[in-house]
Amino acid sequence: MTYPDFSFTITQERGAARLGRLVTPHGTIDTPAFVAVGTQAAVKTLTPEEVLATGAQVIFTNTYHLYLRPGHDLVAAFGGVHRFMGWGAPVMTDSGGFQVFSLGAGLEHGVGKVANIFPGEAGGVLAGAPVRTARPLMKVSEDGVRFKSHIDGTLHTFTPETSIAVQRALGADIILAFDECTSPLHDEAYTARSAERTHRWAERSLRFFQDHPAVHPYPQALYGIVQGGAFERVRKASARTVAGMDFHGLAIGGNLGKTKAQMRQVLEWTTPELPREKPRHLLGIGEVEDIFGAVERGCDTFDCVSPTRNARNGGVLARFDGEQPLPRFRLNIRNARYARDPRPLEEGCDCYTCTRFSRAYVRHLFKADEQLGQRLATLHNLRFMARLMAQIRESLAAGTFDALKRSWLEPVGLGV
Amino acid sequence: MTYPDFSFTITQERGAARLGRLVTPHGTIDTPAFVAVGTQAAVKTLTPEEVLATGAQVIFTNTYHLYLRPGHDLVAAFGGVHRFMGWGAPVMTDSGGFQVFSLGAGLEHGVGKVANIFPGEAGGVLAGAPVRTARPLMKVSEDGVRFKSHIDGTLHTFTPETSIAVQRALGADIILAFDECTSPLHDEAYTARSAERTHRWAERSLRFFQDHPAVHPYPQALYGIVQGGAFERVRKASARTVAGMDFHGLAIGGNLGKTKAQMRQVLEWTTPELPREKPRHLLGIGEVEDIFGAVERGCDTFDCVSPTRNARNGGVLARFDGEQPLPRFRLNIRNARYARDPRPLEEGCDCYTCTRFSRAYVRHLFKADEQLGQRLATLHNLRFMARLMAQIRESLAAGTFDALKRSWLEPVGLGV
Ligand SMILES: [Zn+2]
Ligand SMILES: [Zn+2]
Repeated sequence: MTYPDFSFTITQERGAARLGRLVTPHGTIDTPAFVAVGTQAAVKTLTPEEVLATGAQVIFTNTYHLYLRPGHDLVAAFGGVHRFMGWGAPVMTDSGGFQVFSLGAGLEHGVGKVANIFPGEAGGVLAGAPVRTARPLMKVSEDGVRFKSHIDGTLHTFTPETSIAVQRALGADIILAFDECTSPLHDEAYTARSAERTHRWAERSLRFFQDHPAVHPYPQALYGIVQGGAFERVRKASARTVAGMDFHGLAIGGNLGKTKAQMRQVLEWTTPELPREKPRHLLGIGEVEDIFGAVERGCDTFDCVSPTRNARNGGVLARFDGEQPLPRFRLNIRNARYARDPRPLEEGCDCYTCTRFSRAYVRHLFKADEQLGQRLATLHNLRFMARLMAQIRESLAAGTFDALKRSWLEPVGLGV
Repeated sequence: MTYPDFSFTITQERGAARLGRLVTPHGTIDTPAFVAVGTQAAVKTLTPEEVLATGAQVIFTNTYHLYLRPGHDLVAAFGGVHRFMGWGAPVMTDSGGFQVFSLGAGLEHGVGKVANIFPGEAGGVLAGAPVRTARPLMKVSEDGVRFKSHIDGTLHTFTPETSIAVQRALGADIILAFDECTSPLHDEAYTARSAERTHRWAERSLRFFQDHPAVHPYPQALYGIVQGGAFERVRKASARTVAGMDFHGLAIGGNLGKTKAQMRQVLEWTTPELPREKPRHLLGIGEVEDIFGAVERGCDTFDCVSPTRNARNGGVLARFDGEQPLPRFRLNIRNARYARDPRPLEEGCDCYTCTRFSRAYVRHLFKADEQLGQRLATLHNLRFMARLMAQIRESLAAGTFDALKRSWLEPVGLGV
């Protein structure tokens, strides 16, 4: 299949890592790139202009959410998600599978995957969380998934065909094949059967995509999704299978293991099986050390809610607090130690927030429950991610990626 | 007393109405002007640049709130409220009296004055609301008011001296004398005794203001407050008394009656007693018909939370919905009828929101609980108020105020 108006060019390779340019009908994405999440056709608290001004190149919106509300037909009637939300740059949508399955699997296993993708890490939900026994909200069959809306309890069915039809209507530049997203608590046998079904769904997604042209006056590109959990045999088989299909790019999804080390292991099984020339998206990853680890293992784009979600809870991304390296690159602006701190959220940051406001003021806004605080922290965190990605791209061009990685991770005692 | 760097010039008079220019150390305010409310040193959801871009000339922040959190000493250490919040234009602060008394009186009488200043109007809280018997959170004496923080229950005392000291620390351009704010349920005898105490507090406020120079490197102006409830004798006496004191301007505060008609009556008793050459601020008024009524009766500035508070609840200010005049100049963007409406919030509006987004998108944001919806509605509502005030000023210059008023109020069946 041809993907007109799409291309991916690797301009530099350093080991498995790649510097590239991903061309879409709504503009070019310099990779490696972080994809800001705008679940409900809005990057929470921000206008499109503000998101762009942080240096974000592409956003990720959510098929499941927009299908339920306001409805993909309504978005289509407004000319697609770009025009509906006033965002002129590239957009990705997921297949809807992750949300459908995280609702179902979350109830089944007590694992809120949206909340913590690494349940075995400190603070992960597996640590002591009881396995819930509530009846799952969804039911999987060969045809697809039947699920209950989290908004109003109505019943819906998503199949590969539904997912692609909805994503055609939404009109994102890059869309994803429908997949089953397994949980870290599924065993190898179930994960393997599920991956095989996901491959059949990938074929159906591709066929429906080929048979139904774009709804809006520009083409879309379709990525396949590699599943297989944290099981070497299953993951490698899935990577090989999906790699052989006629997708424009590949996404790596599902359960990436219970720890960050397992995630890196999963990537080492996966990316060598993927065709070099196709772009690779890693789903749901956005912590600094994970991005270094994923770039190093050949991933090109990454989406994650954590920079924006943390911002809304007062979690500000920064490398240092004065001289002190910050563990996990994060300070909590609600902390009393910032009450009279005249410095910006992060010294040296050129974002709107840091060039205008003190930590003391932003902390006041959080303590006083003023939404402006969440906005200012979100702006900063997205700018932090954009600056990190720009540094990574520069280091790949200059051949200094390893030194950059060490300079970020060693002060906080992290290795990859 | 002289008020250096302050002046008020009346450039045109039409009956009792005045067109003027109010000069402050942080810039000039063209009057009549609406004062946007930024209670906690932030106009809710917006950045200072955004507030300015709506055409707002001056904001109103809250002495009681900032005294409790983050503390006036902290704001002072950051150079005052302008620098703390990044707002370079004029600021007013209230005396703290309104909040102190609305907490106390609210519990005593079941009247949430912040919620509805006209309890006798349709929807007012007096209509069927039981009188609560909870022990008031505050206690008034000749010295001042002892009250409990609504944040943490700690006990505090505000006196005229405290109020002015706190307002010196906050550093607003225009500050207010400390007053007791009576409720619509206080009788004439209590209201008269209270007004007399407020006059003694006005003298004490003035004396403390004269004896304690500005904390920040620019002067401040002090307004006295006329009280007296909706009682002709008390209101007129209060106006005459406060008019005789050495304030830069006068504010009209407290209980303005149980209906909008009574408010207009109260103004007709009050403004003729005030010196022509001093600026007059009407506290807590911001509905369209009330602004026409107050301008016509000689008020120069007005503050009110309603445009911003309504915006956060989906109440969008607009004159027409298509051909249909909108009662109370407001539509509820959450209404299902706007689900697929491609029009801007208000046709013809030049605000950020209206030039970029559809009603359908803004409604989606509200239904999906996206803060961006509240921002976009707030931006529009402040722009609506700024455009209304600009029209009023133009009409006063041109001698067409009555025609303008009729063109606004007659289509919706309102007279003043
Ligand atoms: Zn910043
Ligand atoms: Zn507008």
